[in-house]
Amino acid sequence: MISFENDYSTGAHPRILEALAATNLEPTPGYGGDRFCESAAAHIRAACDDETADVFFLTGGTQTNTVVISALLAGHEGVIAADTGHIAVHEAGAIEATGHKVLTVPECDGKLRAADVKAYLEAFYADASYTHMVFPGMVFIAHPSELGTLYSLAELEELSALCRRYQIPLYLDGARLAYGLAAPDTDVTLADIARLADAFYIGGTKCGALCGEAVVFPRGGMPRHFLTHAKQHGALLAKGRLLGVQFDTLFTDDLYGEVGRTAAAAADELRRILREAGCTFFRESPTNQQFVVLENAQVEALAERIRFSTWEKLGDGRTVIRLVTSWSTTPDDLAALEAALHEVMQ
Amino acid sequence: MISFENDYSTGAHPRILEALAATNLEPTPGYGGDRFCESAAAHIRAACDDETADVFFLTGGTQTNTVVISALLAGHEGVIAADTGHIAVHEAGAIEATGHKVLTVPECDGKLRAADVKAYLEAFYADASYTHMVFPGMVFIAHPSELGTLYSLAELEELSALCRRYQIPLYLDGARLAYGLAAPDTDVTLADIARLADAFYIGGTKCGALCGEAVVFPRGGMPRHFLTHAKQHGALLAKGRLLGVQFDTLFTDDLYGEVGRTAAAAADELRRILREAGCTFFRESPTNQQFVVLENAQVEALAERIRFSTWEKLGDGRTVIRLVTSWSTTPDDLAALEAALHEVMQ
Amino acid sequence: MISFENDYSTGAHPRILEALAATNLEPTPGYGGDRFCESAAAHIRAACDDETADVFFLTGGTQTNTVVISALLAGHEGVIAADTGHIAVHEAGAIEATGHKVLTVPECDGKLRAADVKAYLEAFYADASYTHMVFPGMVFIAHPSELGTLYSLAELEELSALCRRYQIPLYLDGARLAYGLAAPDTDVTLADIARLADAFYIGGTKCGALCGEAVVFPRGGMPRHFLTHAKQHGALLAKGRLLGVQFDTLFTDDLYGEVGRTAAAAADELRRILREAGCTFFRESPTNQQFVVLENAQVEALAERIRFSTWEKLGDGRTVIRLVTSWSTTPDDLAALEAALHEVMQ
Amino acid sequence: MISFENDYSTGAHPRILEALAATNLEPTPGYGGDRFCESAAAHIRAACDDETADVFFLTGGTQTNTVVISALLAGHEGVIAADTGHIAVHEAGAIEATGHKVLTVPECDGKLRAADVKAYLEAFYADASYTHMVFPGMVFIAHPSELGTLYSLAELEELSALCRRYQIPLYLDGARLAYGLAAPDTDVTLADIARLADAFYIGGTKCGALCGEAVVFPRGGMPRHFLTHAKQHGALLAKGRLLGVQFDTLFTDDLYGEVGRTAAAAADELRRILREAGCTFFRESPTNQQFVVLENAQVEALAERIRFSTWEKLGDGRTVIRLVTSWSTTPDDLAALEAALHEVMQ
Repeated sequence: MISFENDYSTGAHPRILEALAATNLEPTPGYGGDRFCESAAAHIRAACDDETADVFFLTGGTQTNTVVISALLAGHEGVIAADTGHIAVHEAGAIEATGHKVLTVPECDGKLRAADVKAYLEAFYADASYTHMVFPGMVFIAHPSELGTLYSLAELEELSALCRRYQIPLYLDGARLAYGLAAPDTDVTLADIARLADAFYIGGTKCGALCGEAVVFPRGGMPRHFLTHAKQHGALLAKGRLLGVQFDTLFTDDLYGEVGRTAAAAADELRRILREAGCTFFRESPTNQQFVVLENAQVEALAERIRFSTWEKLGDGRTVIRLVTSWSTTPDDLAALEAALHEVMQ
Repeated sequence: MISFENDYSTGAHPRILEALAATNLEPTPGYGGDRFCESAAAHIRAACDDETADVFFLTGGTQTNTVVISALLAGHEGVIAADTGHIAVHEAGAIEATGHKVLTVPECDGKLRAADVKAYLEAFYADASYTHMVFPGMVFIAHPSELGTLYSLAELEELSALCRRYQIPLYLDGARLAYGLAAPDTDVTLADIARLADAFYIGGTKCGALCGEAVVFPRGGMPRHFLTHAKQHGALLAKGRLLGVQFDTLFTDDLYGEVGRTAAAAADELRRILREAGCTFFRESPTNQQFVVLENAQVEALAERIRFSTWEKLGDGRTVIRLVTSWSTTPDDLAALEAALHEVMQ
Repeated sequence: MISFENDYSTGAHPRILEALAATNLEPTPGYGGDRFCESAAAHIRAACDDETADVFFLTGGTQTNTVVISALLAGHEGVIAADTGHIAVHEAGAIEATGHKVLTVPECDGKLRAADVKAYLEAFYADASYTHMVFPGMVFIAHPSELGTLYSLAELEELSALCRRYQIPLYLDGARLAYGLAAPDTDVTLADIARLADAFYIGGTKCGALCGEAVVFPRGGMPRHFLTHAKQHGALLAKGRLLGVQFDTLFTDDLYGEVGRTAAAAADELRRILREAGCTFFRESPTNQQFVVLENAQVEALAERIRFSTWEKLGDGRTVIRLVTSWSTTPDDLAALEAALHEVMQ
Repeated sequence: MISFENDYSTGAHPRILEALAATNLEPTPGYGGDRFCESAAAHIRAACDDETADVFFLTGGTQTNTVVISALLAGHEGVIAADTGHIAVHEAGAIEATGHKVLTVPECDGKLRAADVKAYLEAFYADASYTHMVFPGMVFIAHPSELGTLYSLAELEELSALCRRYQIPLYLDGARLAYGLAAPDTDVTLADIARLADAFYIGGTKCGALCGEAVVFPRGGMPRHFLTHAKQHGALLAKGRLLGVQFDTLFTDDLYGEVGRTAAAAADELRRILREAGCTFFRESPTNQQFVVLENAQVEALAERIRFSTWEKLGDGRTVIRLVTSWSTTPDDLAALEAALHEVMQ
């Protein structure tokens, strides 16, 4: 069945599979010491316009958040996140499992507003009991957010300035970064992120790779012995080349950009189809995830024709569903969706 | 340069790459809910001769040990391992990072002897202070061991019986299980392991996969909510199909056996070459890892010709090196090694 | 300066000091194996009307919450608490430091409402992604709550029934239990708590002891090897007698009841004084903690005369302060407060 | 029954109880902010001859080791200890529960030898795989050791110099420090320890207090936000005065020295009695713990007359027992022991 369920339901971009096949029998050192990781890191540093950036490859998103956040926080510190943040809700308590509290602030369009974070920090240090509380030691944001929304450059600059004033790192989860960078109206570039964040990752799994996320610590900011820390968290692949080859490919000839643009164009078309079918949008999303509200009966009927995911039952006979494009979404997929909606929505 | 450095220096068995390419565009559910994982699990249950076994796919060896051990131990318990055990030495304290102590017992040929474990358990419960000590809650073994040695069926049966008497699980790390099962004189089968262990994993990363380990809990023994536990430890791949396709391929037409036999034949030839070159064996190993003692000057000369790994400096002008075969070792590789040794050893 | 700052600003009830002196030179076994602990436990079992209850003595409140909660939760589980709950705010992330998330539900008068907990549990299991989320594995309440309020018997019964339906323990933090049990209109007895909760503690530190909390697991429900678990968390006193003697004294001739009643009578008088002085109550509290709203200038003036604690700055020129009675509050203390308020409030 | 079982079987030195009674009704701020803690810290700084030392009061020994060690180690680091070290054996895995491995080195007379630690450190950094291993991040010693033995000043200086060369802290567990400082032939003073260690604690529980250990970080070396860290580990007493009053008393008029000297004199007499009774000493101990080897029948007979602890069953019909003096050992106790041995040993 044709799927708009998510951006990880197919395998890898074909050029990645080709690169894996082409390099398959070349022996390389293990644990990320191979020439592919080296080349991929060099490409990423260039793309970030930061020749001093440290780059490290990990396997998945929750793993990356866990390993990076636990490496950057002191024992008495927690991480501030939107209450819709992936680490706050959908990572099964992975951050807490490393001993750190996720300190939530109400979201606004799926994002953290600098004003709200500032208010949180000020209230914390104004509290007479703050030494009995978890210190806010980091700010976590996702770009695109879990609701598909994007920070503007001004918003990122404001958050970054705030973090620097309080001397806590700003960490950006870029699980779907390709789709954020390719969004039609964004004014945020990879170099901006590298300039404004203290750590971030460039998502591979949801952007055309089989697996893999590239963690970037701009300005040489990787914590000491980070490899050992990753190993301790079971996050160091013996065949690091699997990650190196994939990211080397993604950052050669701008494949990462192409992956993003393909999905963005498909998302444009998806929005048109949904709008013309008369769907109500739950949230405005400029990226590859689209959220619409349907009658429950429509949801059931659509589910017989197309795969998508259920986001939230509204309890009034309606349900929010999510439809997602990716590098592998085809015009045929979109046409099939349009036809299905035509049947379902009348 | 030709490499005998380890069994993870090349990519994947070509049939795995073919299978990944063939299935690439088929959309599947995420997180291991795909048909490939299902099929792989069914093949593995059949190979284990246990239709009730639970099978779960993880990405790497340290990750697997961490996730499984922390799922099986209670808070006050630790895991007994040989003092050469991977979890005791080379996993960067991953077990301790989950709050559990590794309780070491002196190794014998790289293995745990049931008699030593029994003595440990008896001494523990005889100690007047045992309630102030870490309870032995599990026994960890590797088969093949970190030194390439193998348990006999009788040894496994003895360890299994001991664990059952004390009601603690026996867990077997099978990172290199293919090479153990294919060893010329072993009397241990996969079904034996499934019968005698309470949890074990079938190694993929070092046995022909790009990554991946298949955890087996015989007799339906998977801990409740193990998927959530894995997610919490950053061990759940979004594209679970990557693991499913690989293990489905490895357990179709006995590719896993073939991988083992190829390396075993190469190891036979490797032993002959080393012996005929006059090398001193550090330990007898019936599997794909061979350990020999060379003069330091010989080590240096060989390193200019062939890649291998340094195991231990003996401090008397000699060094133990390790040479490893795998599914991808070719007759040409072996011939090159023989020629190199001929130059170096004279 | 006379203090209404909290209920732990003086030492111990004099009868406790007498008992410590009287028993001082008697040698006893360590770690809680002494006759005083035994006798105290027997008294507590009788007071709880549960001859099968397990009783264990710990030193402080945060320690007790940490040790008990981590002993009762599985790795993938968290604990539900009011968002004003002590474990959610003022224990410096102690629960998270043991790997478990505190799952917050909005408070109502400082309490958890069964309806809200039920809604949380239902929403959790209705969520399509719940296996990627922290399982609600326990319910935490404080009685009195952090705002001095009390559960009614009906409320406790409802929470208990809900927990039993979901098979998760109900845990009650009784840091100030003496003051809750002695409140004028409460219909909740210690035996009710033992009947309805699965674990709770009887607070000593804030109820007349130098230190110490008595954990009760009704119906023999103490987790296996709990002593080892406590030891592992640094919570086992070598001189367990210090806790045993204190609780033996508190539960002999109903001293614990007397401590509560003394503070309750003082709280009655305190409420009258505050009311007659024209103070605005921030919340209605039937126990020994009283919260009133003063002008900032009044707060400053009062602070020169009496010690109290600042609860919250309202940002409109007013501040919430907390005044607390205890077993050691004297009529002279209350008279001094009345005089001070007379000067300050006019 | 008269007890030589341990040094925590009686209550507190009478002057401590007197001080607690004398200060009982004075209201003080909580959590260690009281004037007694302040005064005690000042006395301790003076006794350490380090006016810049940070002093913090905790409740028990395992708690102190856990809180201090976890505060000083980075995530990828473990702590080196003798294999007989308390943290390695008898603290129920408390260090591991905070995520850190205890790295053991064989003991010599219950002590760590600098040469052995040096060899460990050198071997670690010489190992090709050290980035996959737990980094040695601290050295733990106990003075007196768990076997009652003492470091000489030269030994401490050597360990301290080694730690400084490797830039890792030297931490000294002084659970029985009073008895170490009072030993007849020691050349180590409290000021020496403050000069040579980076953190240590002055034991109260086993040296005359009801509970309490005074942690000293010489040269202002307390980790940032240590109070919050202690709170997070459930180690912060609400009534911090309980610790303050006790240590203020112990360090007024040299009561701590007196406690040590009383036990040392009793230990001298104990050694004489044991020697004259013909006992075989298991180890030479210059402090308050004496270890002798008796026939099992003698052990049983003695146990009917005197309380002591069983250390180790030798398996040859003999048992090592431990007899301990303290500040509360009386001449009558010693006479009773002598009489009992006279009956038992003939």
